[in-house]
Amino acid sequence: MCRWLAYAGTPVLLDDVLYKPAHSLIDQSLRSKLGVETTNGDGFGVGWYGLEGHGEPAVVRDIGPAWNNRNLREISSHVRSHMFFAHVRASTGTAVQQTNCHPFRHGRWLWMHNGAITDFARLRRDLCMAVDPALFASIEGSTDSEVMFYLAVTFGLDQDVPGAVGRMAGFVERLGKEHGVVHPLQMTVAVSDGEQLWAFRYSSLGQSRSLFYSSRPQQVRELHPDLAFLRGASDDTRLVVSEPLGDLPGVWNELPESSYTVCPSGEKDYLPFWPEPV
Amino acid sequence: MCRWLAYAGTPVLLDDVLYKPAHSLIDQSLRSKLGVETTNGDGFGVGWYGLEGHGEPAVVRDIGPAWNNRNLREISSHVRSHMFFAHVRASTGTAVQQTNCHPFRHGRWLWMHNGAITDFARLRRDLCMAVDPALFASIEGSTDSEVMFYLAVTFGLDQDVPGAVGRMAGFVERLGKEHGVVHPLQMTVAVSDGEQLWAFRYSSLGQSRSLFYSSRPQQVRELHPDLAFLRGASDDTRLVVSEPLGDLPGVWNELPESSYTVCPSGEKDYLPFWPEPV
Amino acid sequence: MCRWLAYAGTPVLLDDVLYKPAHSLIDQSLRSKLGVETTNGDGFGVGWYGLEGHGEPAVVRDIGPAWNNRNLREISSHVRSHMFFAHVRASTGTAVQQTNCHPFRHGRWLWMHNGAITDFARLRRDLCMAVDPALFASIEGSTDSEVMFYLAVTFGLDQDVPGAVGRMAGFVERLGKEHGVVHPLQMTVAVSDGEQLWAFRYSSLGQSRSLFYSSRPQQVRELHPDLAFLRGASDDTRLVVSEPLGDLPGVWNELPESSYTVCPSGEKDYLPFWPEPV
Amino acid sequence: MCRWLAYAGTPVLLDDVLYKPAHSLIDQSLRSKLGVETTNGDGFGVGWYGLEGHGEPAVVRDIGPAWNNRNLREISSHVRSHMFFAHVRASTGTAVQQTNCHPFRHGRWLWMHNGAITDFARLRRDLCMAVDPALFASIEGSTDSEVMFYLAVTFGLDQDVPGAVGRMAGFVERLGKEHGVVHPLQMTVAVSDGEQLWAFRYSSLGQSRSLFYSSRPQQVRELHPDLAFLRGASDDTRLVVSEPLGDLPGVWNELPESSYTVCPSGEKDYLPFWPEPV
Repeated sequence: MCRWLAYAGTPVLLDDVLYKPAHSLIDQSLRSKLGVETTNGDGFGVGWYGLEGHGEPAVVRDIGPAWNNRNLREISSHVRSHMFFAHVRASTGTAVQQTNCHPFRHGRWLWMHNGAITDFARLRRDLCMAVDPALFASIEGSTDSEVMFYLAVTFGLDQDVPGAVGRMAGFVERLGKEHGVVHPLQMTVAVSDGEQLWAFRYSSLGQSRSLFYSSRPQQVRELHPDLAFLRGASDDTRLVVSEPLGDLPGVWNELPESSYTVCPSGEKDYLPFWPEPV
Repeated sequence: MCRWLAYAGTPVLLDDVLYKPAHSLIDQSLRSKLGVETTNGDGFGVGWYGLEGHGEPAVVRDIGPAWNNRNLREISSHVRSHMFFAHVRASTGTAVQQTNCHPFRHGRWLWMHNGAITDFARLRRDLCMAVDPALFASIEGSTDSEVMFYLAVTFGLDQDVPGAVGRMAGFVERLGKEHGVVHPLQMTVAVSDGEQLWAFRYSSLGQSRSLFYSSRPQQVRELHPDLAFLRGASDDTRLVVSEPLGDLPGVWNELPESSYTVCPSGEKDYLPFWPEPV
Repeated sequence: MCRWLAYAGTPVLLDDVLYKPAHSLIDQSLRSKLGVETTNGDGFGVGWYGLEGHGEPAVVRDIGPAWNNRNLREISSHVRSHMFFAHVRASTGTAVQQTNCHPFRHGRWLWMHNGAITDFARLRRDLCMAVDPALFASIEGSTDSEVMFYLAVTFGLDQDVPGAVGRMAGFVERLGKEHGVVHPLQMTVAVSDGEQLWAFRYSSLGQSRSLFYSSRPQQVRELHPDLAFLRGASDDTRLVVSEPLGDLPGVWNELPESSYTVCPSGEKDYLPFWPEPV
Repeated sequence: MCRWLAYAGTPVLLDDVLYKPAHSLIDQSLRSKLGVETTNGDGFGVGWYGLEGHGEPAVVRDIGPAWNNRNLREISSHVRSHMFFAHVRASTGTAVQQTNCHPFRHGRWLWMHNGAITDFARLRRDLCMAVDPALFASIEGSTDSEVMFYLAVTFGLDQDVPGAVGRMAGFVERLGKEHGVVHPLQMTVAVSDGEQLWAFRYSSLGQSRSLFYSSRPQQVRELHPDLAFLRGASDDTRLVVSEPLGDLPGVWNELPESSYTVCPSGEKDYLPFWPEPV
C-alpha cells in the first residue's frame, strides 16, 4: 500500500508540511509506522494548486523513493500552496512508472488513493469497460487507483463528489461480488478540485487503512503553545494523513470507518459514507 | 516512430551487432537517416534468448536514450545470443516508461514494432476489448504496439504466426474503417519464439516504414572479403533492420511492401503478407 | 556541448520562455541548429530565484532528455520568476547524472556553462587542487563546468564577478599551456546571484560557441507589434541564449568574442572580457 | 551503510543466489536485519566475470531500489557466473547516482564496500591527492568507497591485495588521526580480479560492520540434506555476505574482527588483517 497527505487552508511552503514534521510523509516513505509496509519507496508524487488560481494543478511524480529525491526537496522549498497532495507509493507488483504514481489529475481534479481492489487483475477489464469510453484513452497506467478515479469521474465527480465516489465504490462492490470476491474494496481516497478537499475512508471488511485529520489550528495552539506547526494557519486549515505526522496528543483524530470529511468543513468534522448501488 | 533490429543465426556478442557497425542501432538512436525522426531517445530495449535454450527470453528496457546508457553497453559486451531484438524508441506523446518500451514479451514470445495505428486514442478501447479477456491484465503500458501484440496472441500466434499477424492487421483495418479512419495501420513488426524470427512490413497506404534484411553471409563475404561483420556467421544467419547498419553495396535488401520474411528462411527470401478479414 | 538560456527581468511563467517560442530551448534539446550536436538529450536542469526573494535559488535537474520530461513541463507551467536559468546537456562521455547537470548552485549563486576545457581528464587534478580546500568537498560531479564554477568562487566571485571569471579563465589558460594544451578553454558561461545576470563568451582560439542576447523589449515590440513574446516586459528585461529562440530579425544580437554582458545592463550592451593572469 | 554479497565457485545463475534465498540480498534491500539501516534503497549494482574468461567484468548499476528493479531480475535469470558481486546501497547523503553505486571497476578489478571514512567531507581532498595522479581522472563519483578503491590500486593492488588494502587502511588511519578524527575507518570490503576473491573486515574502533562467510558446501549438505542452496557446488565454492541469507544453523560463520578471507581459500578460512603504516 502507500502513505499520503492532503493539505487545505492557509498557503504554506510545501516543505513545512512535507519535511519539517517529526514523522513527516518523507519520513514515512522510509519508516512508516501504521502502513502495511514499512517502506514506501516505489515512486512518489506531489500535486498542488497555484495561488494564482488557474484551475489546473501541477503534478510532479517520479519513480524513485521520495526520501532521496533532490528535486522534490527543491520544489518543496520554493512552492507555496493552499491546497496540495503528496503520496509515497509501495507497489504490490504493479510496474514502477510515473503513470502509476499518485496523485492522478483530470482537468482541475486531483485524486490519490491508498488501498486496493481485491483481485484487481481479474476485475480490471470489466472495471475499465465501465469507464466512460470518452475517458478510456486517458488511462495511462496500470493501477486500480487510476481506474477508480476515472470511474468516479464517469459516475459524476463534477456534479457530486461523495455521490460519485459512493457509486464508484458501489460498482466495485457489485462487480467484485459477481466475480466471487468476498471483500472487493479497501480504500482511503483524497480528491480535490482546488477549492474543496474530500477524504474518504471505507473498506468492504470494515477494517480500513488508517486515516487521520488534524484538529483545528486554534485548538492545536492552545494544547501546544510552542509548536511551530500550523502556527499562523487559519482555523479552517486542515490536514488529512494516512498516519499522524507526530505523536502530540490532541492534534490528530482518526476518521471513523465508513465516513468522509470535507475541507473547508461545515458543522460536522465528518459525515457517513456508504457505497451506492449502481 | 522508432528504429529496431532483429538478429537470428550464429551466436554473437550483442556488442558486435548493436555497437560495432558504422551506422549501428545505437548510432541510429542519435541520428537516424530513414526514420520519421532523427532522434530515437525516448527509451530502448533489448531482448535475447539464452544459449541454454530455456524458453523465456530476457528483456532489459530503460526509459533514457540508448546512446548514453552504460548498462546496455555492459550487457552487450557480455551477452551472446543466437536470437535477439533491440529497439530504440521515439515517442509521439505516449508516456516514456519501461512498459512502453519494446520488445514486449509474452511467454516465450518477443514482439517489437515500428509504426502506428492511426487515431489510436480513439480506437484504443475497442482494440483492448478485442484482446482475449484472459490476456487483458497482461497489458501494462499504453502503446498501440503492445495492444497489437496481444491481439496477435489472441488471434493464434502460438499456432500460426503469419496468420495471427494477418488477422491482427485485418482487425485493425476493419475497426479503423468502421471509425472512419482512412489508413488505419502502418507497421513493421518483428516477432520470435526463440527458434524462428518473423518480420512483417505493411501499411494501409502501401507506403510502409523502411525495412531491410541482410544478404546471406557467404554473399557478403564474397562482396567484401575484408569485412569483419558477419564473418564466421552460418549462411542462414540474418539481420532484419529498420535501416541499414552501413552503406556497403550488396549487404542490405529492402523488404518489399506487404511482405514478410522468416529466419531461418526457406527457398524464398520473403513471402507476401496481407491482412486477413476477421 | 550543450545549449542554455538565461532570463532576467519582468517575472514570467517559465513556460512562456522555455516552451512557447518557435525554436525554444526544449526544441533545441531535440534539434539544435548552431550547436556542436543536434541532440542535447543527456540531462537538463532549470534554476530559478523565488519572487519572495530569499537568496537560495531552486534547482531541478534530471538525467533524461528535456523534451519528454513531464515534470519540467509541469514546473514551467506553474512557476514564475524574474531570474532563471535553463540548460540542456550533450555529454561528451562524462557520466549522465544529476550532479553533472547544469545549473550548479553554491549559496545564492547559479552557474551554467557550454563549452569545454581541452584535455580536461589530464588537467582535472591540478584544476581541482586549485579550488579552495574548504570548497573541495562541494564538488559532487565530474564535469569541467563544475570545477570552473568552484574556481570562480575561489577567485572571488562574491566580490567581483567579471574579475573572478577572468581569473578562472586565466588560470585554465596558464595551466593548460603548462601541460602543452594549445587552446585550453572554450566557454560561454552564465552566472547570477539573483539580482544580476552575467554572461561571458570566450575561447582561447577566438572561435567561441554561439551566444546571443535579446534586444530591448521596446525595440522588439516596434519591430514586431503582433509578437506575444516579451510583451509586457520591462525594458531592462533580457534573455541570453546559446542560439536564437526564433528567426525574427532584430530580436537577437550576437555577443561578440571575448566579451560579457550584465543584466540589468548599464549604458553598454556588453563589455570586453579577457582572462586575467593568476 | 549498505549490504553486499560476493560469490566465488561453481558457476550459478545469479538468480539462485540473489533472489532465491529466504533472506536474500534483494530482501535485505527492503528489510535488512543487521544493517545500520533497515532499508537499502539508494541504488544497487551487480558485477560479474564472464565464463569465457576475458578479463573485464560486466558492471550493471542503477539508482533506484533493487527490490523493484525488473532489469536486475531479468539479468539474474539469464546470466551465469563463477565470480560475482552484488551491492545494495543506503546513502548517508551522498548523491544517488550510478557512479556512486557499487561495485566499482578498474581494469579486471571489482571492488565494493560497506562502511565509511569518518568525516570524509573533511578528509576527501587529501585522500584524493594521495591517489596516483594517473588514476585521478578515473574517479567519477563522490563516495569514500571509490576513493578507497583507487587508493588501494595506488598502493599496489595488482601486486599484493592484502598489502595494498592494508596500506590504504593505514593511510586513512594516519590521515584521519592527523585531522583529529578518533576512529577514522569502518569497512567491510570485497575485491576480486576474476580468479580470486578477497574480503576484509576492519574498523578503527574494533566494532566492524557484520560480515559472514559460508561453510563448505559438503558440510552444508551434511547438515541440511534437503537444502537446494549450494547443491552441486564444488567444495571451494564460497559466499561472503554482509548478513546471512537465511537462519540455517551451521551455514554461516562470522568473519572475525581485523581479518580477511580469500576464495579459493588455503588451509585457513581466514587470516589476520591490520592496517600498514604508509
